[in-house]
Amino acid sequence: METKKYAFGVDIGGTTCKIGFFDTTGVLLDKWEIHTDTSNAGEGILEDVADSIRRKLQAVYEAEEREASPETGRECVAKNFPRDLMSEVQGVGVGVPGPVTDFRVVHGCENLGWGTVDVASKLEGLLEIPVKVENDANMAVLGEMYKGGGRGSKNLILVTLGTGVGSGIVCGGNIITGHDGAAGEIGHMVVDMEETVQCSCGKYGCLEQYASATGIVRLAKTKFGLKSVIPGEELTAKQIFDRAKGIYGTTASEADTDALAVVEHIGKILGIALANVACVINPEVIVIGGGVSKAGSILTETVQKYFVPNAFGECSRAKFALAELGNDAGIWGCLKLLLK
Amino acid sequence: METKKYAFGVDIGGTTCKIGFFDTTGVLLDKWEIHTDTSNAGEGILEDVADSIRRKLQAVYEAEEREASPETGRECVAKNFPRDLMSEVQGVGVGVPGPVTDFRVVHGCENLGWGTVDVASKLEGLLEIPVKVENDANMAVLGEMYKGGGRGSKNLILVTLGTGVGSGIVCGGNIITGHDGAAGEIGHMVVDMEETVQCSCGKYGCLEQYASATGIVRLAKTKFGLKSVIPGEELTAKQIFDRAKGIYGTTASEADTDALAVVEHIGKILGIALANVACVINPEVIVIGGGVSKAGSILTETVQKYFVPNAFGECSRAKFALAELGNDAGIWGCLKLLLK
Repeated sequence: METKKYAFGVDIGGTTCKIGFFDTTGVLLDKWEIHTDTSNAGEGILEDVADSIRRKLQAVYEAEEREASPETGRECVAKNFPRDLMSEVQGVGVGVPGPVTDFRVVHGCENLGWGTVDVASKLEGLLEIPVKVENDANMAVLGEMYKGGGRGSKNLILVTLGTGVGSGIVCGGNIITGHDGAAGEIGHMVVDMEETVQCSCGKYGCLEQYASATGIVRLAKTKFGLKSVIPGEELTAKQIFDRAKGIYGTTASEADTDALAVVEHIGKILGIALANVACVINPEVIVIGGGVSKAGSILTETVQKYFVPNAFGECSRAKFALAELGNDAGIWGCLKLLLK
Repeated sequence: METKKYAFGVDIGGTTCKIGFFDTTGVLLDKWEIHTDTSNAGEGILEDVADSIRRKLQAVYEAEEREASPETGRECVAKNFPRDLMSEVQGVGVGVPGPVTDFRVVHGCENLGWGTVDVASKLEGLLEIPVKVENDANMAVLGEMYKGGGRGSKNLILVTLGTGVGSGIVCGGNIITGHDGAAGEIGHMVVDMEETVQCSCGKYGCLEQYASATGIVRLAKTKFGLKSVIPGEELTAKQIFDRAKGIYGTTASEADTDALAVVEHIGKILGIALANVACVINPEVIVIGGGVSKAGSILTETVQKYFVPNAFGECSRAKFALAELGNDAGIWGCLKLLLK
């Protein structure tokens, strides 16, 4: 089937919905955000998304009409809006923060107030355009595979180090969703059987308790006694990495040595955890994203230092890359999914 | 395309090649073994396999001829052997003990003396029948998915506890091979960062060092001081499980309590490791196979006891099953791959 001219990518988050308008040759024509209205169990979210998409098509139509106005001597190309322009849209890809089956139904999105929602049918009903839905972490890895840090690979994992630790996995070009759409939850791998502090999930010793932005700060405070060195600022993961890099004072100062020790400790935990993940799925590329990844090469190099000797055989050759698309990864993944 | 009447499955091991002759409706018509001749870098192995397959077809032809002999009043149905019967063969599936790409080429089989070998092209050249090749562990999981302990599931892992610990993984109905064909090497996940004894792979603290048949015995001897209670017999994993079940003496005897402690310890290590695997791929079914699995429910129940509280959310609902096909899993997987 021929690919149509346009496509939309929608990344629905708990605060905003990010929308991308694409040329299907792989050009992001425009992107914007709308508020995610989670009132009334989020029942208006998909209607708001549909409205925003319709408004965009209206604007495109008007722009085309202007171009085709008598001054230019050309005829209008889309007389019967919205039908004509709609028929030029390949589809709408939608990333949602919950487990998705069959590219259509999401089974609970706590952040949106949703239970089980047939997102594809609902949005197709509103727009009369084909819709494909996937978990947001999976959309992000597709995006990084298509246009970001994992370009060209068919076997990769995007590890997102943010408030939590999540991942999206592609094997042989296919997204790994798992039986319940819960694959890639590497933040809840048990990495310390002796941990006495409970993870938000109820278990003890999850990777997320050490390698997320909050986990890094927790570890730095409790295990290394680190305190903020910036007056009026709480200790953050960013400050810890900056100090380890010697951005505050010299790396020879006591504080910096401690910050370096924290980075080393996190690198070890994360490096061994990723070596274990590599034993399972043998990725070609491990892409590190999320807020913590802004630390850059000090993070990837420390992780790699512990990854290589702990990964098995050929798995140890996995390349490390930083995510390149930031918050746009999801909408790029939507486009990739529609083009598949 | 219409499925043809017959198919062959070939599981090439370091000592023997197991060959299955199937009706493609899912009936194993015959199975036998031939010697694996690893002399001269195993250069004769595929010719021996091709000869054996040709001989089988010759026998089938002769049987059909006998049936169609003048006594029965029917005509011979396959006058031009081998061409006619060959055309009724869907293909030959081949499982090999090494990493395979594109269902054709294996990149090194130490046990066979092979470097990189294009098994599919070579065997297709010898037999003029389509050939599909896959790693033997992956063939085994396909077999268990098709006719064994994982029947009906599209998201499963076959964990093989034998001399080593290996696995084959299917996600969404697809075999997970990984970038280098090294996916599923869960035996080399690091489960004990403090281990001082080296694994055969050169690393320290691999799952295989505790949960393989040899690992279980090692652990029982070094950590629990267990000795064989059968005169003239070395301590084996089987003896340990038998003692834990109370087969020798009462479970209240000192030896049995120790054996139970070993089983408990192994169950904990394996249960947590599999919980971590489940965080990555979220399987519906975890099938336990290999020699150690003959211990039966005492093994799966102890593993599950530690798996459930350490697996994340819906991943903890994975069902445990025992492998059902034993050494035939590979040839059944070959058939499944040909029918895909």
